[in-house]
Amino acid sequence: MLDMILLGTGGGMPTPERNLSAALLNYKGHKILIDCGEGTQVSMKIARTGFKNIDIICITHWHGDHIVGLPGLLATIANSGRIEPLTIIGPVGIKEVVNGLRIIVPYMTYELNIIEHRNETLNFTCTNENLLLSDKGEISINTLELEHSAPCIAYAFNINRTPKFNLEKALKNQVPKDIWNILQNGSSVNFQGKVYEPSEVLGEEREGIKFSYVTDTLPIDNIVSFVEKSDILICEGTYGKDDDKDKAIKNKHMTFSQAALIAKKAQVKELMLTHFSTAMENPHQFIHFAKDIFPNVQIGEDRMTKTLTFEK
Amino acid sequence: MLDMILLGTGGGMPTPERNLSAALLNYKGHKILIDCGEGTQVSMKIARTGFKNIDIICITHWHGDHIVGLPGLLATIANSGRIEPLTIIGPVGIKEVVNGLRIIVPYMTYELNIIEHRNETLNFTCTNENLLLSDKGEISINTLELEHSAPCIAYAFNINRTPKFNLEKALKNQVPKDIWNILQNGSSVNFQGKVYEPSEVLGEEREGIKFSYVTDTLPIDNIVSFVEKSDILICEGTYGKDDDKDKAIKNKHMTFSQAALIAKKAQVKELMLTHFSTAMENPHQFIHFAKDIFPNVQIGEDRMTKTLTFEK
Repeated sequence: MLDMILLGTGGGMPTPERNLSAALLNYKGHKILIDCGEGTQVSMKIARTGFKNIDIICITHWHGDHIVGLPGLLATIANSGRIEPLTIIGPVGIKEVVNGLRIIVPYMTYELNIIEHRNETLNFTCTNENLLLSDKGEISINTLELEHSAPCIAYAFNINRTPKFNLEKALKNQVPKDIWNILQNGSSVNFQGKVYEPSEVLGEEREGIKFSYVTDTLPIDNIVSFVEKSDILICEGTYGKDDDKDKAIKNKHMTFSQAALIAKKAQVKELMLTHFSTAMENPHQFIHFAKDIFPNVQIGEDRMTKTLTFEK
Repeated sequence: MLDMILLGTGGGMPTPERNLSAALLNYKGHKILIDCGEGTQVSMKIARTGFKNIDIICITHWHGDHIVGLPGLLATIANSGRIEPLTIIGPVGIKEVVNGLRIIVPYMTYELNIIEHRNETLNFTCTNENLLLSDKGEISINTLELEHSAPCIAYAFNINRTPKFNLEKALKNQVPKDIWNILQNGSSVNFQGKVYEPSEVLGEEREGIKFSYVTDTLPIDNIVSFVEKSDILICEGTYGKDDDKDKAIKNKHMTFSQAALIAKKAQVKELMLTHFSTAMENPHQFIHFAKDIFPNVQIGEDRMTKTLTFEK
């Protein structure tokens, strides 16, 4: 089960109605924050999400409306008593930016591991205390280079599901009952002098959960395969009307219908639009531009939540 | 006349009830912002102050809760169409910090003049477009080095008032009527081959308006003479109870009663407390600690306003 909350859904500047870009994932109590625009902390405070258990912060790019809240949040996480290292992921160059911003964070109680995008899957395993980077794990994070006026990346989060336990196979392979559970969780076991592999008890593969987050960018082709079959795609819709397409191209953003077309081509289950230009007072007014192309679409609102579960 | 609005009154981290440290002065439509904690833009948006006419930004120090909102605000000011240079004043080191933060402000339409504290009065004259640094002027800004865990300065703003026009003196000195107005406004005039000085028409000196802003600091002695006879003193009261004095010393802050004692000794007209620790849920509960020492004290609230006028 993966819980998601949109913390901010505005683009450009914060308003009383919309904080700037941010979303929070919660998997088994471990939190992953995506972007940290101004107002993120207040939104977290209203939603009572807590601060201490943010194990990973994924930054799409370092334009102010996506990162201004970061130094303040890092300070608050320190004040919450965190001592476990925290991972920050971002585009190439993010290390220098985050280290630059740290000048306004006087007090830190934990280390930062900063990882720059390099076209490879990052896997994380859950421990009681933290999400740890490892060869394989329950959570996989993929990144994709986007096309914006600063280096910018999209994120796809996969909650991987172990294959079904196959009793027949386990019995046939004479695997001792004592280690069924460990093998099912994906680890090899040396038991009474013999090594057993997970494949000796596991059956067919099972679909996990896929959550994708795409902002700020032109609607480049690569996005479609990257977000393919997501359970939910959070995608920027900076401009509502099709008439604003030229403005979107100029500022390297998308219109509602461009986001909807990606959702349709990628066969995602649900699309949630975000990052609305402040020039657009009521994004709901333009939702038909998206709905005509991809019906299962919503206008994202601050503190809108979604729970994604494994299919049976 | 000087209008003041508190934009944020919290310390440490922003909450739904209190944005972080910021106050805005408005003199003849020219705006001076003091500090720019997270949430400042939203507070300005709610108060409908506008962004374009912020001519000066005074930063007390670069701890996140006083400066996190700056890069976002600089971007919003650019988007508002400002082309006039903007002055930033701050403690020694502020140049490097602001230039560091500019990495997350991709688009600027105006120049920044950054001035570091150097124990001298900065005078500004009003033009139609901007507040310009000059030898003398309607607005004087003084700064004082405080005692905090980062270089930090207090601000005293004086709205200077020209002396009263003295008709008797003007007639006695045979000053032509045509130039009375110019001389009264403080400029010398060469009229029909003769130079006239303001002193030839001006009478007694008149008190201007003094507004002081003091946060974050231990209650050092120098503050008293620096804020002396302010019409209003905005002062930090991070901790309410006297019992928290040791905590205040450790974190280089003040309690309500320490702030009140400064107000009393300095004979200010009014004290407004700000920068409340988030540990203190309701600062009003502790106001008696200040009131017992200095009765004309208020708990600052976001968007509390005050208009200061010249005395007759």
